[in-house]
Amino acid sequence: MEAIRWQNGCLWLLDQTKLPLKAEYLECWDHQVVAAAIKCLQVRGAPAIGAAAAFGVALAGLNYQGMEMAGLEAAVQQAVTDLRKTRPTAVNLFWALRRMERVFAGTKGLNLAERQASLVAEAQAILAEDRAMNERMGAFGQELIPVGAGVLTHCNAGALATGGFGTALGVIRAASQAGKEITVFVDETRPLLQGARLTAWELLQDGIGVTLITDSMAAYVMKQGLVDLVIVGADRIAANGDVANKIGTYGLAVLARAHTIPFYVAAPVSTFDQATPTGAQIPIEERDADEVRGFAGTVIAPEEVPVYNPAFDVTSGDLVTAFITDQGVIKPPYRENLPVILGVKGEE
Amino acid sequence: MEAIRWQNGCLWLLDQTKLPLKAEYLECWDHQVVAAAIKCLQVRGAPAIGAAAAFGVALAGLNYQGMEMAGLEAAVQQAVTDLRKTRPTAVNLFWALRRMERVFAGTKGLNLAERQASLVAEAQAILAEDRAMNERMGAFGQELIPVGAGVLTHCNAGALATGGFGTALGVIRAASQAGKEITVFVDETRPLLQGARLTAWELLQDGIGVTLITDSMAAYVMKQGLVDLVIVGADRIAANGDVANKIGTYGLAVLARAHTIPFYVAAPVSTFDQATPTGAQIPIEERDADEVRGFAGTVIAPEEVPVYNPAFDVTSGDLVTAFITDQGVIKPPYRENLPVILGVKGEE
Repeated sequence: MEAIRWQNGCLWLLDQTKLPLKAEYLECWDHQVVAAAIKCLQVRGAPAIGAAAAFGVALAGLNYQGMEMAGLEAAVQQAVTDLRKTRPTAVNLFWALRRMERVFAGTKGLNLAERQASLVAEAQAILAEDRAMNERMGAFGQELIPVGAGVLTHCNAGALATGGFGTALGVIRAASQAGKEITVFVDETRPLLQGARLTAWELLQDGIGVTLITDSMAAYVMKQGLVDLVIVGADRIAANGDVANKIGTYGLAVLARAHTIPFYVAAPVSTFDQATPTGAQIPIEERDADEVRGFAGTVIAPEEVPVYNPAFDVTSGDLVTAFITDQGVIKPPYRENLPVILGVKGEE
Repeated sequence: MEAIRWQNGCLWLLDQTKLPLKAEYLECWDHQVVAAAIKCLQVRGAPAIGAAAAFGVALAGLNYQGMEMAGLEAAVQQAVTDLRKTRPTAVNLFWALRRMERVFAGTKGLNLAERQASLVAEAQAILAEDRAMNERMGAFGQELIPVGAGVLTHCNAGALATGGFGTALGVIRAASQAGKEITVFVDETRPLLQGARLTAWELLQDGIGVTLITDSMAAYVMKQGLVDLVIVGADRIAANGDVANKIGTYGLAVLARAHTIPFYVAAPVSTFDQATPTGAQIPIEERDADEVRGFAGTVIAPEEVPVYNPAFDVTSGDLVTAFITDQGVIKPPYRENLPVILGVKGEE
């Protein structure tokens, strides 16, 4: 099941707010629908957001009805501006939009239909490359996973969060495909329960051993010796190795360190942001208080209770044992080793 | 609002599964209803369970319709046996039942009505003493709380969990009453959300500053310097200071240590179990998988996903900065200092 599909000039997004109870696709015929889908998490996961946004830009190009190049350029620019405002933390969004802008700027000599087609082709390339990167990441990463390992993961860094296969779940999939007989503990990941709804569902579909726990159980499961490594995805990785990822990731990293358990972050090159020196410069999105006061319309807390609801936290690079990327595994010191392995790509 | 009320030969329990949306009392006219209420968490919190069970024994005595002492004794013994099976972890349950048995054994020379009355009186004493202990605990504990402190708590160790006032929340209440202008971060406490439903509600009712967070946010809130101390209740404390408490407590203790934040446990003498040498001997209740697969009755995970659902975890005494008890504040080394301050009471 693909989270993102391009067919006949329309972007189809598997509506992740409805999983696992319903597998419904949202049809996106213009960039506004894509922007709204990103904001309300119908599509989520840093790489998937980037790819969806790229298709949003392509849709804006296709939907331009005039004959003037200036009009096409304004339409594309408006889409980039609108999509840029959807979510602040994941850098893949900005990376994909910059890439679309650059490709579009490079088509200046071409005619309207050619420029429209090149936008679609670039969005398709972003999606296809992401899937290929995840598969390479899986191959590199699975070598770090011992036979029979207990693996803990948080949120959803799977096929649903990416162009396919997944980052953290891609490594888990690759280890499973290599016959390593692993067991995966999945944090449910409040408030929006991506672990319970999406990761548990993906692993069950693939027949990989899964046990669902609440976020508060991770420490106790570690204490009992059931976890050999933790692996998560990322929304943005700063130049010094600080990682922004789903709220709860930082706590897991501290707990892993306290239990001498390796803590890995799997991410494609588009998640590394060499322009952000440290985690302190990463903007952290705060979401609506009602996400914490309840779930999916069921209110459980007093309606008037004040809430703090950061969607992400920042984990110091010091707590990351290694990054698993499509270019290979990167170990500390990160300020030196990230640019070497990621090369110019990190600067894109 | 009282969680436990004895009136006209009936035990009234505030149904905590319905809070904060509804404040309804459950009428208990026999010990079976009390046992069922304990099992399904209509009454919860270690001290409250102890008091409710004591009234369950009293009800069994009152309900005896015969004239034979042997019959009365069998009825009381049956109630003790049934109530003992309800929940395995909190020691206050066993402590209260032993206390009822001992008092009942001491009434051998008295007539039937006198023996029945003494059971009721003893249950009432357990309830009243618990409230008084909580108030003493609050007075001792609030001295540890700085003016303007940020306090993190987990689950509900409040008036609802006790005979009144609360253990951890009793200390918070006492600090607030002393004018210390504290702010309390409340973990929602999955799976059953006692923090969001009960603690947030209690603090709002008292006008104490409260911010609700998901369990996964605690580490990040600590990292941001918003937490000056953590305070929780306990379900059982072993002779070496190991603490069984609501799942998630152990993780908080490790995180507090990593952030150099004091970690306090507030508990009355009935929670200390000198007969259990270490946490390894404390039985940990595992509850139904559907508590994790769902959220307040709404299924959110795939129905067939395997789940691990321990209701409690064990925190090593090494991670506890101090115990706040009704006898005073107890600091390490616990194996030596717990018996000194708790005296014979811990052996009861």
